[in-house]
Amino acid sequence: MSIHSVRRECANLAWDNSIPPALHVKSGDEITFDCLDASNGQVTTESTVATLGTINFAALDQVNGPVFVDAAQPGDALQVDVLRIENPEWGWTALFPGFGLLADEFPEPALKIWKLEQEGFAWFDEKKGIKVPLRPFAGEMGVAQKKNGAFSTIPPYHTGGNIDTKHITVGSTLFLPVEVEGALFSIGDGHAAQGDGGTAIETPMKVTVRLSVRKDKPYTKTPHFSTATADTKPEGEYYCTTGIDSDIREATRSAVRNMIAFLVADYGLDRVEAYMLCSVAGDLRMHEVVDMPNYVIGMMMPRSVLGPSNEA
Amino acid sequence: MSIHSVRRECANLAWDNSIPPALHVKSGDEITFDCLDASNGQVTTESTVATLGTINFAALDQVNGPVFVDAAQPGDALQVDVLRIENPEWGWTALFPGFGLLADEFPEPALKIWKLEQEGFAWFDEKKGIKVPLRPFAGEMGVAQKKNGAFSTIPPYHTGGNIDTKHITVGSTLFLPVEVEGALFSIGDGHAAQGDGGTAIETPMKVTVRLSVRKDKPYTKTPHFSTATADTKPEGEYYCTTGIDSDIREATRSAVRNMIAFLVADYGLDRVEAYMLCSVAGDLRMHEVVDMPNYVIGMMMPRSVLGPSNEA
Repeated sequence: MSIHSVRRECANLAWDNSIPPALHVKSGDEITFDCLDASNGQVTTESTVATLGTINFAALDQVNGPVFVDAAQPGDALQVDVLRIENPEWGWTALFPGFGLLADEFPEPALKIWKLEQEGFAWFDEKKGIKVPLRPFAGEMGVAQKKNGAFSTIPPYHTGGNIDTKHITVGSTLFLPVEVEGALFSIGDGHAAQGDGGTAIETPMKVTVRLSVRKDKPYTKTPHFSTATADTKPEGEYYCTTGIDSDIREATRSAVRNMIAFLVADYGLDRVEAYMLCSVAGDLRMHEVVDMPNYVIGMMMPRSVLGPSNEA
Repeated sequence: MSIHSVRRECANLAWDNSIPPALHVKSGDEITFDCLDASNGQVTTESTVATLGTINFAALDQVNGPVFVDAAQPGDALQVDVLRIENPEWGWTALFPGFGLLADEFPEPALKIWKLEQEGFAWFDEKKGIKVPLRPFAGEMGVAQKKNGAFSTIPPYHTGGNIDTKHITVGSTLFLPVEVEGALFSIGDGHAAQGDGGTAIETPMKVTVRLSVRKDKPYTKTPHFSTATADTKPEGEYYCTTGIDSDIREATRSAVRNMIAFLVADYGLDRVEAYMLCSVAGDLRMHEVVDMPNYVIGMMMPRSVLGPSNEA
């Protein structure tokens, strides 16, 4: 196993399979990415709400990479183990006019700069006793699409990208569908914490992942992940399938359909059994509802419900 | 405090403010409801998939009540503490043609009869080791609307009804907006367990609740609830606001808007602060996505994030 790194300057503003790799690695290698925050360094600890008026929106949501993974072929899945995230020290949360679920009801910009305590929380309002637990994760993780062209890093796609899924913290594993040789993985958009919709506590982030090629998960058509993060206990580990679509209901249907495919392939259920099990034991979570035009809906299944799998 | 009961025969197939009360109680009284399953007794332990062809759909999803609560006035909230649920012994799960998120992909009927173990789980497939934890709750809890007429018990409304929200188990508290004198509360649709979409493990249910009038929650415009059930730990208690609408995105917006109203009223935040806090710390969950035409989306906020409230 080799250890690699990608510098913060190696960042791009599009998913584009023609961008030359920043790095070539072998399956199983670890890579550390040094990522600026989603403003690409335009917001700093000194910023005020006036800063928001000067932001160049075309420079937002850069992703670091891409990393070419040897042996990754179209039809494979790329396994991304999130190994380490350096404790972030500061972050920001903004209301941008025109952005967000209630954009029409919040026309004025607002900015909050957070000091992030090393004990793993941030005061929202110390006098009132309101504090937010920190659970750092990368909002953007994805691979290149087979379709040629430069695709904005703002929306999420079936190949990942801005999926903003807070469950994929350290210890979690993401699976992405490989569409081009080498997969061309990129990452960015550090979050110290986030709810399921809206702006996160945005932060620069040093994150280390291990990238591995999986030939045994051909049913991975959208991002899947496996997680045992704090807020999903005591069930322990969950396996999650996502649906990504510009229509929320279709995204939801896709998430369920993808869970059925997983249960059929790895647990030997027939389709009717798998659908019934989703009905009685699956959680539906909205992972991302603001990065237009696409929504990310997840079906999460507790592994404790399932027996031994056929997985490798 | 008095203890009351509502028999299984005292059930109705509509939300209708002209239905005479089955019972009058005082605020703070406990009531035990003996409810048939959602098939109104048409499915039994002896049923097979052929039974589904004989079901009278007009008789489904009856609710027991209504209970007139003294002193409940329009504009109040009705607090429903779920105190006890007798362990159910059997249940059923069905695929009905034309019903459900993937109805078009599952045209054939299917039925599963479950034996529910007293240890709190049910085998889905004992040979494969797949089992579902039981978390009994009532799928239907609601009050009469101010609007005159007989409204189907199939969809959920802003006044509750078929909200199918699995988090409202024993130990949880539901708040409903009172629209008519006495509130006229009803309950039914026992579930031994349910995911977030689809058919539950449907079961007859004996459930005891305490009904109390709250004059201090005028912002309760849709069902709100407070829960500390197993699958939301280790955060401990959550406060949840729902949005109910025929459009999923509007339901989501309403859930967030209702959480903002709660945070402003009970935690003294301004609207921008409340919106930001939802962004960085709120969960969006899909509680119900199949009881057409209305969806139920919830925003869940961990109480551990919040400081002391202004609530009574």
